[in-house]
Amino acid sequence: MSGVFGVYSPTRSNLASEVYYGIYALQHRGQESCGIAVNDGGVISSHKDVGLVDAVFDREVLARLGDGEIAIGHCHYSKRVTATRANAQPMTVNHIKGQMALAMNGALINAPRLRHELELLGSIFHSLSDSELIATTIVHERLRNPSIEAAVSAAMYRLEGAYSLVLMSPRKLIGVRDPLGFRPLVLGERDGVHVLASESCALDAVGAAFVRDIEPGEIVVIDPGGLRSLREHVTGGRHALCAFEYIYFARPDSVVEGTQVHEARKRLGAALARSHPVDADVVLGVPDSGIDAALGYAETSGIPYGLGFIKNKYIGRTFIRNDQREREDRVRIKLNVIESQVRGRRVIMVDDSIVRGTTVARIVRLLRLAGAREIHVLSSAPPFLNPCYFGTDIDSREDLISVRLEPDEIARRIGADSVGFLRHEDVNEMVAGCPLDLCKGCFSGCYPLAIPPNLDALRIRDERRFGARLSQAN
Amino acid sequence: MSGVFGVYSPTRSNLASEVYYGIYALQHRGQESCGIAVNDGGVISSHKDVGLVDAVFDREVLARLGDGEIAIGHCHYSKRVTATRANAQPMTVNHIKGQMALAMNGALINAPRLRHELELLGSIFHSLSDSELIATTIVHERLRNPSIEAAVSAAMYRLEGAYSLVLMSPRKLIGVRDPLGFRPLVLGERDGVHVLASESCALDAVGAAFVRDIEPGEIVVIDPGGLRSLREHVTGGRHALCAFEYIYFARPDSVVEGTQVHEARKRLGAALARSHPVDADVVLGVPDSGIDAALGYAETSGIPYGLGFIKNKYIGRTFIRNDQREREDRVRIKLNVIESQVRGRRVIMVDDSIVRGTTVARIVRLLRLAGAREIHVLSSAPPFLNPCYFGTDIDSREDLISVRLEPDEIARRIGADSVGFLRHEDVNEMVAGCPLDLCKGCFSGCYPLAIPPNLDALRIRDERRFGARLSQAN
Amino acid sequence: MSGVFGVYSPTRSNLASEVYYGIYALQHRGQESCGIAVNDGGVISSHKDVGLVDAVFDREVLARLGDGEIAIGHCHYSKRVTATRANAQPMTVNHIKGQMALAMNGALINAPRLRHELELLGSIFHSLSDSELIATTIVHERLRNPSIEAAVSAAMYRLEGAYSLVLMSPRKLIGVRDPLGFRPLVLGERDGVHVLASESCALDAVGAAFVRDIEPGEIVVIDPGGLRSLREHVTGGRHALCAFEYIYFARPDSVVEGTQVHEARKRLGAALARSHPVDADVVLGVPDSGIDAALGYAETSGIPYGLGFIKNKYIGRTFIRNDQREREDRVRIKLNVIESQVRGRRVIMVDDSIVRGTTVARIVRLLRLAGAREIHVLSSAPPFLNPCYFGTDIDSREDLISVRLEPDEIARRIGADSVGFLRHEDVNEMVAGCPLDLCKGCFSGCYPLAIPPNLDALRIRDERRFGARLSQAN
Amino acid sequence: MSGVFGVYSPTRSNLASEVYYGIYALQHRGQESCGIAVNDGGVISSHKDVGLVDAVFDREVLARLGDGEIAIGHCHYSKRVTATRANAQPMTVNHIKGQMALAMNGALINAPRLRHELELLGSIFHSLSDSELIATTIVHERLRNPSIEAAVSAAMYRLEGAYSLVLMSPRKLIGVRDPLGFRPLVLGERDGVHVLASESCALDAVGAAFVRDIEPGEIVVIDPGGLRSLREHVTGGRHALCAFEYIYFARPDSVVEGTQVHEARKRLGAALARSHPVDADVVLGVPDSGIDAALGYAETSGIPYGLGFIKNKYIGRTFIRNDQREREDRVRIKLNVIESQVRGRRVIMVDDSIVRGTTVARIVRLLRLAGAREIHVLSSAPPFLNPCYFGTDIDSREDLISVRLEPDEIARRIGADSVGFLRHEDVNEMVAGCPLDLCKGCFSGCYPLAIPPNLDALRIRDERRFGARLSQAN
Repeated sequence: MSGVFGVYSPTRSNLASEVYYGIYALQHRGQESCGIAVNDGGVISSHKDVGLVDAVFDREVLARLGDGEIAIGHCHYSKRVTATRANAQPMTVNHIKGQMALAMNGALINAPRLRHELELLGSIFHSLSDSELIATTIVHERLRNPSIEAAVSAAMYRLEGAYSLVLMSPRKLIGVRDPLGFRPLVLGERDGVHVLASESCALDAVGAAFVRDIEPGEIVVIDPGGLRSLREHVTGGRHALCAFEYIYFARPDSVVEGTQVHEARKRLGAALARSHPVDADVVLGVPDSGIDAALGYAETSGIPYGLGFIKNKYIGRTFIRNDQREREDRVRIKLNVIESQVRGRRVIMVDDSIVRGTTVARIVRLLRLAGAREIHVLSSAPPFLNPCYFGTDIDSREDLISVRLEPDEIARRIGADSVGFLRHEDVNEMVAGCPLDLCKGCFSGCYPLAIPPNLDALRIRDERRFGARLSQAN
Repeated sequence: MSGVFGVYSPTRSNLASEVYYGIYALQHRGQESCGIAVNDGGVISSHKDVGLVDAVFDREVLARLGDGEIAIGHCHYSKRVTATRANAQPMTVNHIKGQMALAMNGALINAPRLRHELELLGSIFHSLSDSELIATTIVHERLRNPSIEAAVSAAMYRLEGAYSLVLMSPRKLIGVRDPLGFRPLVLGERDGVHVLASESCALDAVGAAFVRDIEPGEIVVIDPGGLRSLREHVTGGRHALCAFEYIYFARPDSVVEGTQVHEARKRLGAALARSHPVDADVVLGVPDSGIDAALGYAETSGIPYGLGFIKNKYIGRTFIRNDQREREDRVRIKLNVIESQVRGRRVIMVDDSIVRGTTVARIVRLLRLAGAREIHVLSSAPPFLNPCYFGTDIDSREDLISVRLEPDEIARRIGADSVGFLRHEDVNEMVAGCPLDLCKGCFSGCYPLAIPPNLDALRIRDERRFGARLSQAN
Repeated sequence: MSGVFGVYSPTRSNLASEVYYGIYALQHRGQESCGIAVNDGGVISSHKDVGLVDAVFDREVLARLGDGEIAIGHCHYSKRVTATRANAQPMTVNHIKGQMALAMNGALINAPRLRHELELLGSIFHSLSDSELIATTIVHERLRNPSIEAAVSAAMYRLEGAYSLVLMSPRKLIGVRDPLGFRPLVLGERDGVHVLASESCALDAVGAAFVRDIEPGEIVVIDPGGLRSLREHVTGGRHALCAFEYIYFARPDSVVEGTQVHEARKRLGAALARSHPVDADVVLGVPDSGIDAALGYAETSGIPYGLGFIKNKYIGRTFIRNDQREREDRVRIKLNVIESQVRGRRVIMVDDSIVRGTTVARIVRLLRLAGAREIHVLSSAPPFLNPCYFGTDIDSREDLISVRLEPDEIARRIGADSVGFLRHEDVNEMVAGCPLDLCKGCFSGCYPLAIPPNLDALRIRDERRFGARLSQAN
Repeated sequence: MSGVFGVYSPTRSNLASEVYYGIYALQHRGQESCGIAVNDGGVISSHKDVGLVDAVFDREVLARLGDGEIAIGHCHYSKRVTATRANAQPMTVNHIKGQMALAMNGALINAPRLRHELELLGSIFHSLSDSELIATTIVHERLRNPSIEAAVSAAMYRLEGAYSLVLMSPRKLIGVRDPLGFRPLVLGERDGVHVLASESCALDAVGAAFVRDIEPGEIVVIDPGGLRSLREHVTGGRHALCAFEYIYFARPDSVVEGTQVHEARKRLGAALARSHPVDADVVLGVPDSGIDAALGYAETSGIPYGLGFIKNKYIGRTFIRNDQREREDRVRIKLNVIESQVRGRRVIMVDDSIVRGTTVARIVRLLRLAGAREIHVLSSAPPFLNPCYFGTDIDSREDLISVRLEPDEIARRIGADSVGFLRHEDVNEMVAGCPLDLCKGCFSGCYPLAIPPNLDALRIRDERRFGARLSQAN
């Protein structure tokens, strides 16, 4: 997962700090590495590194990046690729037409094949990142296309998968969303300054007004002539926005494709209240992503909502860290139960999802220790049963508890009195009233794009070829 | 403010990581600097530095501190003294009877006089910290007392103010609470291991069961002979626990003197609902400390509770940072409003307190921008009108908005439709049913101990004498 | 300037530390950045950064790079390109046949044109370094050649300039010297382990015996089948070894093309004694590079050699640092005079060269302050009058004092009683008895290869195109 | 060993950079840690840390220390105490009369007893350093003496051992040398600015003229009233300057007590030529400290001096590093032989001393490998047979090769053809013509002060009491 951000100012100004605030607001989408690139009269300066935004950037670095007319930023998380400075984005490249910088959210499903084709033309790749691959494809297309946007459009015929991009050439800021719109991308504006961002909360952070979502397949080009839209890849009818954006990734204060994420989650809680009514004393949400659905459940069921957990604010998001040992060590200090809310009570505990079942089991144990009389666990997502090929890092199938166990077996395994999942038919509740198709591949196994049959094998081959340890080195 | 933590194990074990988890859980009490000292057979090793717990400590440092029988830790915040490695605690000292390490939460009101007395005996002070002063006093008393606990007891006759201490000699762990019990200190136990901590949430973090609060004036000594209590300074009747511990400092999942902090805050919200009824559509709590009282207000008033704000989890607590510029820059990315909860509605916004009025004004503006129709601001603390001499960093009087303005003037100033404060007579609601006296000096100006008339002047003199810049140097 | 080092071991062993010692011994050739790449069964791990060898590498990093069969290293200095981690070598690239790492000493004179040709094929360049350019050229040739060594040989037809290379493919270590042999490269051996290095002093550092110099134009390939030599580019007759290698770059304990560098320098001193006899009391050498020639002058003239200067050993080489301000500040603490050797005496002071005249003027002033009666300055190099295009960073013509002034004018300018330079006809004294042609372009303006007329303009265009600030960013 | 430096300017100016240059020039006396303290109107700012001068200080730190009227600095090496930031000097203390900072070169022989006496008065010690002990003693004396210089003078009655001090009170710079003058201390002057330094080379580094040596027992006080000398402890007749200052510690360009160090060493070489004549072809000096004596030997014997060794300039002094493993690893890359100077020749190799015999054995092996026909090793110091209690870190007796073996046995052990030492009766050659008594305790076992019989036992007791690991912690 990643967050992308771009800004175009008709007059030269301190864009590095704009992007800094933007990626700060998007950091929940990826906290492993981050970067900012600033374009000042065609010369691109960048800084990027492994670490949180406020560790990677300080006043001095932002001052050094300095002023410009265009700037982009990125924050990143990946389970597959170890975070290194070399992998961090934005990816800046020099080619015969000048410099280009690019940041991406998503994942290609034809990366190994595309990389092979480019290598046959002599291309060198320094990483396995899709962003380097996309940049190289665009540079190749640039040689036979009259403009950067024409090159982007030509390259899109060769890219398969999920990709929301912001990129800049010496004089243009370009935003791109893949033809199925797997990942969000929005446009904002403030006093003539155009802003592109993964989520609307980043527009709020820089004081820009939300204008509209970028359409699936759309290319927006912002340059001294203003903003224009290229719609060659816009199909109009089709959509495949990742359902997990509403359930987990996006921030509740963001509006994605017309739906406030907080309300989407509340509606999932309400659906759970209808499909899984429980006789209980209090509804608790597991922070942070379970809170919204718990409020929805409470509102619909009439059972009081309670503050059941305190989360240590100095520790990052469990799901978003990629070191298993670290996860184990930190769980005991991450969450604590407010005993007075729980002791002697029948508790409904709502979480955003149940993946491996280990975290939920630990929370159930905490509730028992605090004296809960009954514990009913509800997941505002359906069971995870399949891998995602479009940028969500889901554990391998053998680790997914729902692949192996039925809900009542899960309840026994984790020590709960009952376990319930959102029903598949209720997933679209989250966009109630919004004619939006969602990608539910991880629940249903049915994907909006055909997955190449040997994709995993090709990826492993490339990883071996590029050197298992390359990524850890510099 | 500070958090203190101590652990005594009858068998040598890896206590550094125990303390690590303990101070991690207490970090809301002070995130500027932290430290751990481990006592292995009378030899004390320590590590401390400016920074968050997980920046200061890593696996390697914890491994190097290694095993021991006794260990203590500390996390610290101070507005008055610039954070430096030299100021960080625990304070380890070598004296004629061996080594001693000490960590403190609180503030002395006779520090300048006591320091002067000791300097007349040739003592050298490397900092202005009260912890060095207390350590020096104890070392002096140790020369004429037969044991470390006797020295501590003798020293207490010379200390005036608020102090909860954990300290260790070569063979003993000692916990101390001042005779009025300004600051909390609790005792826990797990499999024969004794634990001392500022709050019970730190006991939970290390899996220890809560045993009891240390009494005001009590000295507990834990050594190979077990735990015993010295009650020479226990007066029994009197208490002066800082009211702000419930309102702001302590974590909602902690139980302080028998009262769950979350419930204390809810009761303050309920009291507000009774004293300040408002005709509104939704009750919002300002995260994090305003949430509990908002739930109490909603429950008592019948007006629905709503999730109104998303706090960027990657940024620290406003009140706890001590750099004004930093505060300004970060406020815009720290909080965002969930517009769907607010647009067109009459909103009650509950916060823990109103100090200078600048933060609340910015939040009111955010709500207006999000379309709130009416905004009613309620503070779950009475107006701040006076300085605190016992360890709470309150802005100087000229910066306190309530010193200058009445609530309706404040409402106009911050752009709210109305502003209300908890009534003085409702402060004790927080410990309803608990016969506890609270220190409410910052609200009432009436302090449990007489403040030396020239205290501020003496402090400034000492700061000048010790060198304005000393603290920044190494 | 750079130093390169490579090692091939028939059995897997800890090659990272071998290379560490090797580049440590070569650090006088470039102290701005350094790097090591280790090839373990075809997987290349590397670490490189700006800084001295012992700052960039520690035990942990060396352990992490671990064991392998092949490894290469590099240390680097450049006045033209700001040192950055991205510019540091070895350059590791991934291409369709696997990984390749490369380190280079030298400079291409057709870089802009070659880069342009490759960009027209879609190549992306991340830096302006010649090493990336050479790597890309080889990767392109690899697509149509049956082996890496054939690709290297084919690439050599496209490279013009000075280059001594070490490179490794998954299974081979390859050493290359350009057809004119501008820069040195030697082969060593220890117990079946083959070593390549810029100078023989690095062989000594790893306990390897000197085998021979790599010939100009030669490609040596070392793989499981042993060592073999490709001589397609060996012309036999021609040589253009940089004369400044003997005068300044190489270490006195190195043997370059059969001549011990210390003896070469002594012979220059002897030539000076014959061409510039002076009636004086003592001969002093300016450390470090002037010592050898001073001994040669003393021996031939019969005037006693004296230890006149103490160099602060904690400061690097003046010439090798590229920050003008830093140079100014440090000169006063870098050298000091031993007054007892100088007071009241007529002094001959021998230095390796006189470039801008500022350093020598400061040393003359130090000698005057110490009481020298007469000061005669002799340079063991002829006057610098022309730029170098083959890897030596010489100041621009307007800064070269000999371009503007005659020796007696220089003497007046720097406050000396006389100034003398090595005569052009004596330059070959340094390789007396060795039938070696030297490149003396910086003295004579006559270069062994034709310099493209617009080279400087093309370089500036590329620097602009790649972004003036790119190099400072990450 | 240590270097100390102090400067007093009648007008406020940038003294931090003056001290920076001063301790840079003294860094050969101690390269483990360093520090600077600046006194600006009575407020002392300081910065100190483990590391080389140019690692600890950069422009930013020097700017932050800023301007002042008085400043002192220190560089330090100790084998006994692990280098830590806490141990680094200058030691700054706050006491009832204000601030004081102090830097020391030397060692006390009554430290454990003095420390015990002060602890009985309640003093806390944070380290085992003599500088903290001296500072505490002075602070105690300050309580009953009318001025800082009177307190220093009173304290001197309680200090036994070697100590050259620079210290500053709010308004005074004070220099002190112990009554026997074990360690050097000189006074310089430049435009009304007074400078104190361990060696005259540091005066040269800041452009100050040498004025005179501080006399043994003398206290110089520099304040707005000018410079005055207190001579209460000056005995006049007695001297005990450490002989090893000339042989090894001091820089050849320094003048110590009227003798240029380079000339002192040359005289030792001349004495060796007379006492140990050898029939050989070339005289080589082991860099750096053996060069001077080799020149003296060559001059007196008529055997030509040759440059036999190249020392890698990027590595520190063997003797001065205190990590045995580090020493082993680095020796092979530290020195290399210039083979053309050695092959087939009979070589005399002069070194400053032979301590454990391991380093000299490795150098002899290098010479053999380079083809030396005969190798005669000469030490310009007599055999080390005894510990030093006055600040020189000598290996323990069991490690001293001369304690166990006679010269001819040493020759066999190290692989030399012969080994010779300076004769005891020739030690005073170094100060020929100068009526100076030297401390030769390490050679003779006869010390200028009586060593307390239980000193080693008391030191070990204190080390245990203060915690073996304390020094590694913070």
